[in-house]
Amino acid sequence: MTMQLSLGELAQRLGAELIGDADTVIRGVNTLKDATATDVSFLANPSYRSQLSDSNAGAVIVGAKDAESVKGAALVVANPYLSFARVTQMFDNRPQPVRGVHPSAVVAASATLGADVSIAANVVIGEHCVIGDGCEIGANTVIGDHCVLGRDCLLRANVTLYHDVVLGERVQVHSGAVIGADGFGFAPDKGRWHKIAQLGGVRIGNDADIGANTCVDRGALGDTVIGNHVILDNLIQVAHNVQIGDGTAIAACTAIAGSASIGARCTIAGGAGIAGHLEICDGVHIAGMALISKSITEPGAWASGTAQMPLQDWRRSATRFRQLDSMAKRLQQLEKRHEGKA
Amino acid sequence: MTMQLSLGELAQRLGAELIGDADTVIRGVNTLKDATATDVSFLANPSYRSQLSDSNAGAVIVGAKDAESVKGAALVVANPYLSFARVTQMFDNRPQPVRGVHPSAVVAASATLGADVSIAANVVIGEHCVIGDGCEIGANTVIGDHCVLGRDCLLRANVTLYHDVVLGERVQVHSGAVIGADGFGFAPDKGRWHKIAQLGGVRIGNDADIGANTCVDRGALGDTVIGNHVILDNLIQVAHNVQIGDGTAIAACTAIAGSASIGARCTIAGGAGIAGHLEICDGVHIAGMALISKSITEPGAWASGTAQMPLQDWRRSATRFRQLDSMAKRLQQLEKRHEGKA
Amino acid sequence: MTMQLSLGELAQRLGAELIGDADTVIRGVNTLKDATATDVSFLANPSYRSQLSDSNAGAVIVGAKDAESVKGAALVVANPYLSFARVTQMFDNRPQPVRGVHPSAVVAASATLGADVSIAANVVIGEHCVIGDGCEIGANTVIGDHCVLGRDCLLRANVTLYHDVVLGERVQVHSGAVIGADGFGFAPDKGRWHKIAQLGGVRIGNDADIGANTCVDRGALGDTVIGNHVILDNLIQVAHNVQIGDGTAIAACTAIAGSASIGARCTIAGGAGIAGHLEICDGVHIAGMALISKSITEPGAWASGTAQMPLQDWRRSATRFRQLDSMAKRLQQLEKRHEGKA
Repeated sequence: MTMQLSLGELAQRLGAELIGDADTVIRGVNTLKDATATDVSFLANPSYRSQLSDSNAGAVIVGAKDAESVKGAALVVANPYLSFARVTQMFDNRPQPVRGVHPSAVVAASATLGADVSIAANVVIGEHCVIGDGCEIGANTVIGDHCVLGRDCLLRANVTLYHDVVLGERVQVHSGAVIGADGFGFAPDKGRWHKIAQLGGVRIGNDADIGANTCVDRGALGDTVIGNHVILDNLIQVAHNVQIGDGTAIAACTAIAGSASIGARCTIAGGAGIAGHLEICDGVHIAGMALISKSITEPGAWASGTAQMPLQDWRRSATRFRQLDSMAKRLQQLEKRHEGKA
Repeated sequence: MTMQLSLGELAQRLGAELIGDADTVIRGVNTLKDATATDVSFLANPSYRSQLSDSNAGAVIVGAKDAESVKGAALVVANPYLSFARVTQMFDNRPQPVRGVHPSAVVAASATLGADVSIAANVVIGEHCVIGDGCEIGANTVIGDHCVLGRDCLLRANVTLYHDVVLGERVQVHSGAVIGADGFGFAPDKGRWHKIAQLGGVRIGNDADIGANTCVDRGALGDTVIGNHVILDNLIQVAHNVQIGDGTAIAACTAIAGSASIGARCTIAGGAGIAGHLEICDGVHIAGMALISKSITEPGAWASGTAQMPLQDWRRSATRFRQLDSMAKRLQQLEKRHEGKA
Repeated sequence: MTMQLSLGELAQRLGAELIGDADTVIRGVNTLKDATATDVSFLANPSYRSQLSDSNAGAVIVGAKDAESVKGAALVVANPYLSFARVTQMFDNRPQPVRGVHPSAVVAASATLGADVSIAANVVIGEHCVIGDGCEIGANTVIGDHCVLGRDCLLRANVTLYHDVVLGERVQVHSGAVIGADGFGFAPDKGRWHKIAQLGGVRIGNDADIGANTCVDRGALGDTVIGNHVILDNLIQVAHNVQIGDGTAIAACTAIAGSASIGARCTIAGGAGIAGHLEICDGVHIAGMALISKSITEPGAWASGTAQMPLQDWRRSATRFRQLDSMAKRLQQLEKRHEGKA
């Protein structure tokens, strides 16, 4: 598929002010550094501003204040990064699936398929599922009984949904993601663990995005709930009965323990850990690899850990960290002596 | 499937003392807060005790000392959490599989299938496998050659077992788990890595539970061994030749490096890291996101890292952490001066 | 398959000097401790030297300086660990696949399959793929459109390749790995996230090894690039547009954020985190669970975090860590007073 648009069309679709020739043809999107005369590029991060004057891009999406610095054509918009996102969608080269149900798919007779669905090879769909209009289900994906997918969901290859998983509209789920596996619930007794059957399900809102190999466990009693416009990166653990508010973004390899409640519009960087049974309010930012073990009740940014050091220096600091309480007490003693003398 | 039990039946199955009407019908399980008159609930964590008087539950599972505080019927038992686990199993709503082999499954002629097995769509079972009585294998799961599954194992959809993996009885494996992949063994030579073929296998004991997207690598020489009643959460890495003792529980996103030996009845919280070639004795608890790089020879609890702080404050502490050795030396100097003066 | 070799043949294949009987038959490989008279063993790590005299191995691969300490036969080589790797390959017991295409596989008519390929059950191969000679594709693996695999690649069961993924020659990919999923790119606007279509692909060099459940995301603009002889362990996250140089080794559960550039011949231990948009030069070693948030411009070893402590002691140190800036300032004040007095 070769896509092309004139700058005039592009400006119109973006609602941009065009400074340049409306007939110039654009065939792709690229960075300022790598763009050629048939590419559109963008400036969103001010630290790349110096590249504007050297870029060979056919046109650059910029804010008003940078319009004059563009060498070629400029597409002037209020939010260049958002406009860039829209342009990437115009030039999206993802292969389009064949509509219909592949003959190798195994779809339960009791399942309901919407209009214009695409069910790829070896897909398995369980009893009483409802698959909304326009949904696309990738090869070898398995959907358990009683699942409901809203319209235009996109499940890639090798996804697993257990039973009783409900997805909103336009939810995207990447390969290897597992939604609805049993939460980690066991009652200990005499050195053995007795399984607590996980009786709840999973509910995911509209426009959510679930990354590759990410796990969202089903609830023990009641559901695990992920809000609208929540975006989860790869290899994330969402334990049973976690709640995640609308618009929250979580980067890769973060782990959220059971029954934690995370507010709306939070941003959690990669590798963070959130302990169970706590609450994080709306608008909180968690730094990379931070451990959060107590509730956070006001918006703001949190961190834990220490910063990178050469290994040899780190060994010394780490040794001293073990002595910190003693150091603090000795410091207090010195201060007391001084006070005595003062 | 609608399940229901009278309180009398429930009390009998649990061995509970019933304070209330034996004919009351129970149709589900729920939390104290959300339970209705047809639900049974439970009190295991004392911090929820205040909810007892407000709960609308038809009956509550409690210990003897809380029996009087229950508003409705009480089921008095020695271990309320264990009884709750049993009740969830009575009300388990997991769809039951169709027994037999789905026509789309690809089962090697040399494989042996026990009685009452359930082999779902698109399952692949390799040469010379032995699948025990009552095993259930989920859709699109792949089992390599020479695997042995004890009776009543439950492998969910999209599980992968490589060759020579041996599971005990009643082992549960969740979707996306990979058991028996090659350990990470390579010999370096002139900037290249020469693969060490991983000649061992994996042995997993009875009643073990392996979480979604968890990896258990095969041994290099000899097997990786997971004991009985070991429970592993999601997204855990168990490297080659690791040994895990009976009854140990490990939470999500923990990584255990090669040849580490972990004792029995340990509890390891989420996101922990265990270095290779060390030993952790029985009964050790590791805190969340702790890094364990030296052997632990006595039962007890261990941690590493730092606790959460507002990001701005954390930056200052992190800067000072780099100066810790210098701070410690300067403190010593001050102390010496004082001693000299004393 | 029972493999056997005489010590004479083994010495010849390894280019080793044999001290012992060339007719002795070897049937396996084992550790010094567990080897029997028909096993070959090896000494690479000096800390096992004391086991040489007790080992019952039929022969031991050693360096010249240890040859005299071997009880039985010795195979004297320059690099014992490398020779051990070669021996494991000679005795590799991995089941060999049936060549050809399994009838249940779904291969696009436009795909090109090389000579001697093995395509297992339920494999799905997309439009216009090119699969090199000798490639082996495990059961239930899905390969998207326009992928290119060099000769002798080995993809295990349940692997997922999205479209436009290019693998070099002899690349191994373990089960559950996902290569080419969308990078985590979204433009925020009014509490919503607008997806940035990920227009790039993934390129992986020759002899790379990708672990189980590891994710390598496709580039946003331009490709994510992994060099030759790069080895990635399990459950690793490689975000969009990351570059990894030749010969670099990364252990399990490490996360690398978007557009990070990692040099050649680096070694990154398990659970590390590398922030986005930074550069790590050639020859850097990162310690386990270290967070790297700034570029590293010279070879060397880096760490972060703190070392393990008993939980009770750790609580005290963690509390003092919060007071570190205050402690440092109070220490300075004491020093100033002393200077004033001196």
